[in-house]
Amino acid sequence: VARKELISHLDRILQSKKIRDYCPNGLQVAGSETIQKVVTGVTASQGLIEAAIEEEADAILVHHGYFWKGEDERVIGIKKERLKALLTHDINLIAYHLPLDMHPVYGNNVQLADVLGLQVDGPLDDEDLSVPGNVGRLPRPMTGGEFSAWIAQCLQREPLHIGESGDTIETIAWCTGGAQGYLQKAVDAGIDAFLTGEINEPAVHLARETGTHFFSAGHHATERYGAKALGEYIADEFDLDVTFIDIDNPV
Amino acid sequence: VARKELISHLDRILQSKKIRDYCPNGLQVAGSETIQKVVTGVTASQGLIEAAIEEEADAILVHHGYFWKGEDERVIGIKKERLKALLTHDINLIAYHLPLDMHPVYGNNVQLADVLGLQVDGPLDDEDLSVPGNVGRLPRPMTGGEFSAWIAQCLQREPLHIGESGDTIETIAWCTGGAQGYLQKAVDAGIDAFLTGEINEPAVHLARETGTHFFSAGHHATERYGAKALGEYIADEFDLDVTFIDIDNPV
Amino acid sequence: VARKELISHLDRILQSKKIRDYCPNGLQVAGSETIQKVVTGVTASQGLIEAAIEEEADAILVHHGYFWKGEDERVIGIKKERLKALLTHDINLIAYHLPLDMHPVYGNNVQLADVLGLQVDGPLDDEDLSVPGNVGRLPRPMTGGEFSAWIAQCLQREPLHIGESGDTIETIAWCTGGAQGYLQKAVDAGIDAFLTGEINEPAVHLARETGTHFFSAGHHATERYGAKALGEYIADEFDLDVTFIDIDNPV
Amino acid sequence: VARKELISHLDRILQSKKIRDYCPNGLQVAGSETIQKVVTGVTASQGLIEAAIEEEADAILVHHGYFWKGEDERVIGIKKERLKALLTHDINLIAYHLPLDMHPVYGNNVQLADVLGLQVDGPLDDEDLSVPGNVGRLPRPMTGGEFSAWIAQCLQREPLHIGESGDTIETIAWCTGGAQGYLQKAVDAGIDAFLTGEINEPAVHLARETGTHFFSAGHHATERYGAKALGEYIADEFDLDVTFIDIDNPV
Amino acid sequence: VARKELISHLDRILQSKKIRDYCPNGLQVAGSETIQKVVTGVTASQGLIEAAIEEEADAILVHHGYFWKGEDERVIGIKKERLKALLTHDINLIAYHLPLDMHPVYGNNVQLADVLGLQVDGPLDDEDLSVPGNVGRLPRPMTGGEFSAWIAQCLQREPLHIGESGDTIETIAWCTGGAQGYLQKAVDAGIDAFLTGEINEPAVHLARETGTHFFSAGHHATERYGAKALGEYIADEFDLDVTFIDIDNPV
Amino acid sequence: VARKELISHLDRILQSKKIRDYCPNGLQVAGSETIQKVVTGVTASQGLIEAAIEEEADAILVHHGYFWKGEDERVIGIKKERLKALLTHDINLIAYHLPLDMHPVYGNNVQLADVLGLQVDGPLDDEDLSVPGNVGRLPRPMTGGEFSAWIAQCLQREPLHIGESGDTIETIAWCTGGAQGYLQKAVDAGIDAFLTGEINEPAVHLARETGTHFFSAGHHATERYGAKALGEYIADEFDLDVTFIDIDNPV
Repeated sequence: VARKELISHLDRILQSKKIRDYCPNGLQVAGSETIQKVVTGVTASQGLIEAAIEEEADAILVHHGYFWKGEDERVIGIKKERLKALLTHDINLIAYHLPLDMHPVYGNNVQLADVLGLQVDGPLDDEDLSVPGNVGRLPRPMTGGEFSAWIAQCLQREPLHIGESGDTIETIAWCTGGAQGYLQKAVDAGIDAFLTGEINEPAVHLARETGTHFFSAGHHATERYGAKALGEYIADEFDLDVTFIDIDNPV
Repeated sequence: VARKELISHLDRILQSKKIRDYCPNGLQVAGSETIQKVVTGVTASQGLIEAAIEEEADAILVHHGYFWKGEDERVIGIKKERLKALLTHDINLIAYHLPLDMHPVYGNNVQLADVLGLQVDGPLDDEDLSVPGNVGRLPRPMTGGEFSAWIAQCLQREPLHIGESGDTIETIAWCTGGAQGYLQKAVDAGIDAFLTGEINEPAVHLARETGTHFFSAGHHATERYGAKALGEYIADEFDLDVTFIDIDNPV
Repeated sequence: VARKELISHLDRILQSKKIRDYCPNGLQVAGSETIQKVVTGVTASQGLIEAAIEEEADAILVHHGYFWKGEDERVIGIKKERLKALLTHDINLIAYHLPLDMHPVYGNNVQLADVLGLQVDGPLDDEDLSVPGNVGRLPRPMTGGEFSAWIAQCLQREPLHIGESGDTIETIAWCTGGAQGYLQKAVDAGIDAFLTGEINEPAVHLARETGTHFFSAGHHATERYGAKALGEYIADEFDLDVTFIDIDNPV
Repeated sequence: VARKELISHLDRILQSKKIRDYCPNGLQVAGSETIQKVVTGVTASQGLIEAAIEEEADAILVHHGYFWKGEDERVIGIKKERLKALLTHDINLIAYHLPLDMHPVYGNNVQLADVLGLQVDGPLDDEDLSVPGNVGRLPRPMTGGEFSAWIAQCLQREPLHIGESGDTIETIAWCTGGAQGYLQKAVDAGIDAFLTGEINEPAVHLARETGTHFFSAGHHATERYGAKALGEYIADEFDLDVTFIDIDNPV
Repeated sequence: VARKELISHLDRILQSKKIRDYCPNGLQVAGSETIQKVVTGVTASQGLIEAAIEEEADAILVHHGYFWKGEDERVIGIKKERLKALLTHDINLIAYHLPLDMHPVYGNNVQLADVLGLQVDGPLDDEDLSVPGNVGRLPRPMTGGEFSAWIAQCLQREPLHIGESGDTIETIAWCTGGAQGYLQKAVDAGIDAFLTGEINEPAVHLARETGTHFFSAGHHATERYGAKALGEYIADEFDLDVTFIDIDNPV
Repeated sequence: VARKELISHLDRILQSKKIRDYCPNGLQVAGSETIQKVVTGVTASQGLIEAAIEEEADAILVHHGYFWKGEDERVIGIKKERLKALLTHDINLIAYHLPLDMHPVYGNNVQLADVLGLQVDGPLDDEDLSVPGNVGRLPRPMTGGEFSAWIAQCLQREPLHIGESGDTIETIAWCTGGAQGYLQKAVDAGIDAFLTGEINEPAVHLARETGTHFFSAGHHATERYGAKALGEYIADEFDLDVTFIDIDNPV
């Protein structure tokens, strides 16, 4: 497929021009003008680029690309290595950050719900739809301990759980990645539990003092599913050869 | 001691008026005008306040107080409970954030070095002294695996280690708390390893691709030592009854 | 009534989520969860809180609450005394600032028009409806001197009048509180007179040089009527016991 | 004297290039290039300009000139009339705002102290010398009522007094003009009374609840003395013909 | 015509209240209240004002007026001379900047297209209609050299051309004045050539490296036509005596 | 020489860490770690990179590099081509913008003075030394016409001259590049003429109305000399092979 056509299709279905973000979305680094072989992944790290070179890919499609607000703009250090590898092998880098968190079908939040069997009841913040994340319910009421084990089984990664393991949990709010700052939204809504990828020190106190369960299940582990789903979609839509490559990350 | 005297002594030795911070430093909530019994701790959580009430303390001295920039200013939810407990029991809340990270004797960074036997060679960023943290060396060259075990033993908490466990480490940069964003400073300086309290997803890639060891040893665990040391100092200086209370926190 | 229900009713009728303001509107300090006895007033001063304690009120409803932009956020000095008094007596503090200025029925501006017999013809600034205040006409044409006496009689407070006491006034613009900065809007609209609660030095020159009458009738005196009217409304609507308490203020 | 010489002399002694202000200081409107006859006053109002034309002045020297931050920049309405009058008559407008508040000899604050017999002990804010105003003592301890009468006699204008008229006052902080926002500085310093030119609604509560006397003595009345003194100085220094003209202002 | 009526008519047809700009639009300097004789021009320079005085005009209508963001606000130097000349002769200054660039009939961009015979196909940036400028086609395909000669003949000014003079050009984007920063928009849209009034160093490289023709035809020369056309319109509409005066400017 | 050593030497002599700029200064794109062959030029355009590849250079040293504030950060279009060419050929890009304008020996301003025989008397703005540019005198008093011809001869490029060609010029202010906005500084200082690389529409009026001569001599033409001189310095200092390549630019 022509790169131009693929990018403008993705921009449109992900509504990327309408979403304010901390990085540019869409084509971030230009490679070859036609694309046949695509590698999808979470983060455009050196490891993922090397895997893409191995696969002779024309494009990498990720959730975490480059050019974050405030980043050093010089092409030195690891940024030089990454860009050199891409440019030398004519590999396009295509990245969607918030648009991929928020998509109602391929988005990280909706895909994570699928993996965990969560029922989606609505957005995390119904007064501000620019906030990613959702509220919903567990597949069935579970104790904190049971749900912790369920997460470990579904994501293949032990979560950190703040809360009593014997309490029963029915309702849950979640947001993939590093969304510990949204815990208050779950508290305000009177939800039993909040799940995200990272945790920080103040969130532990807020969870404990409000009696809200907190599950920290891994930034990478919770954001693995959107890029994979989007890749499967374009494989179908444009008859491309797409491979999802999961570079392991403990965080 | 008169509260006024204690606060103005602390403000002076910690140079708190000269340090820009994300919260007000010094007296944050006013209680009784004289202070005899002080509880020190990391964070002014409900748990710490209740322990202070039990101890019949006149003041709580912490690293993490209240009124962070951008925080909801209303006195509702957990903030109401905390303020009500303090005001009802006439307990002063005294908090020093960055000034306590940076103090050359009682500071979190210098105290952590003491606990881990690290030799302090200089500031983390010698062009910007407003950045907390230090560079230095391990007690003796160790492999990544040995140093990981050493941290676990000193802090009583297993660190997360990114890097090869067989590599030898001699030089180290560290900054207590959530300083994962400073990893680049250690990389630029050519240091073998970086230690802080938290980790995030991009830091894993930066560490791996530059071959810099990263140790995430706990926000709470790395910031436990400054408030304790400062408490011991004022116990001596003003003949106060001071107790350090460690409310456990897994993050 | 449950506090939650009362607040969400007030937030809705005052449209407080849609109005940008210099303070949070709605519940500012949480007290008891049900409310039966309410004291209304202009400003949540120590005097008003003490009167509310005397009345055994569960809630105070005011126009001027706390947590103004740029205010020192520490709980010390008079803020400590006020919060301690509220929290110790479980009194909710409910405050609406701009939303109470602007409400078309209970708002300060419309209520002041009622007290002075002014006919409301439209908003003060018909290009920017976020500006509070109105334009309209006197009950009948009066000289500057007559209208000054009329204000004194209606508000029980002598206004300061800039302008010739013999001139006839028919049209008037007004905005309660400290709205001296809006005099230019009245001038641009060719209105005879402007009335607000405060005056400053440049406004005297602008009034004199454009021949526009200026009446400064007291910040407190002009903003007394909105909280009172809103209190009467909720007394009816929720069958509450509501008392308006006017703590005298010469400004 | 050549205008250029006069302005550069004034800029230097008032250190106007070093003081951040809300308006440009120095020459604001250019008239004739040599200056012999000067009118001084508080505010460059139409009334003052007309008096200067009457006096055949070459320059007006004031505390309140034009071009305030946020002001409409168009030359219409009263601004057109003022500029037209100045430009048609070749009258220079020279204005010093904060530099004239703060000068240690000719400044408004020091000159007001002279008029009221106050002893100057230091700056109002000794940690931030960019804040105008001073702290000091009354000529002798007086009751609130006595000091109120004393102000009325010295300034020929009745002040508004918040506080008990029987209390004795010894120490005082003051800042000319509209400095009601600095009351907290006087409270923090434990001063008995605060005097400025204007008052607002929150200041009344702060004064009452902290037991600090507040005297509001008129914006114009308190700022009359700096321009007058500076005029006398340049009359001497450059052998100019200088007249101070006081356009009455009740605020 | 009454000035008020003329200005409010112009404000309305140019929609000047809805367009964010770097200067105030509409009446900038007030002169006589009725207007009969108008001079139009590009810039309200001293030369144009003197010509207007000669013509005994009541108003000057221009594209470039005064009071640009960041401009020194003092009335000294050339600004004093200009304002003095206007105010002394009671001449109104009326200026429309972006609203005159963008008007679909009298606007500079549409008028320039007329002069050059360009066909207007749409806005320069169809995602952001606040950007002035258009895309379209040449009267007929020409080589770079031919089009350069055509511009010289139509505008009576030699353009600077970056590009091969033998290449054929069909499509063109243009924006009058100093719009060199918009070249990238033409490049992104795949247009053959871009025409504006000024050029700068980076634009030369961008044009060369993307193979886009760049014609720099003079800031003044390209912005001459809007004010002229608008003047002809008001001459008709209000039966005014209107003269366009072109003060030559090589830039 | 090791790249690290060369860069840190240049950073130090140009004091680049102390100068705020619109781009990062020093190493912008990393190539080989040792440097032997250097190409110097004005702008890191595709043309200059290709010349450097031809010359088998290890580094390009320029005045205009990449990563300007506000620039699109994506690696697409001409930016992709430039970076790909650099990274594929392991060529370091070293750029100094303001530090190279301002250096007292190798700086663009001082070097231009040398080429034109101007005597340097001091900085352009002696109250703000962060402003580049100088004031001084012509080699001997010349008429505007003579000086225009002299510039054409020295720089091999016809300047644009605003002013009377018969007037005598003795004093001059200059600033290389696009410094038309600094003309007011020359006017304020009473200098006869101002020379820079570009001109815009308002500068023509300011020059004419104040009687100050303006010479626009080409952005590129005036900024050619600093990079050349710095290249000669490092050739000597580090025994490198350095070639200056002038890619012609009419602006």
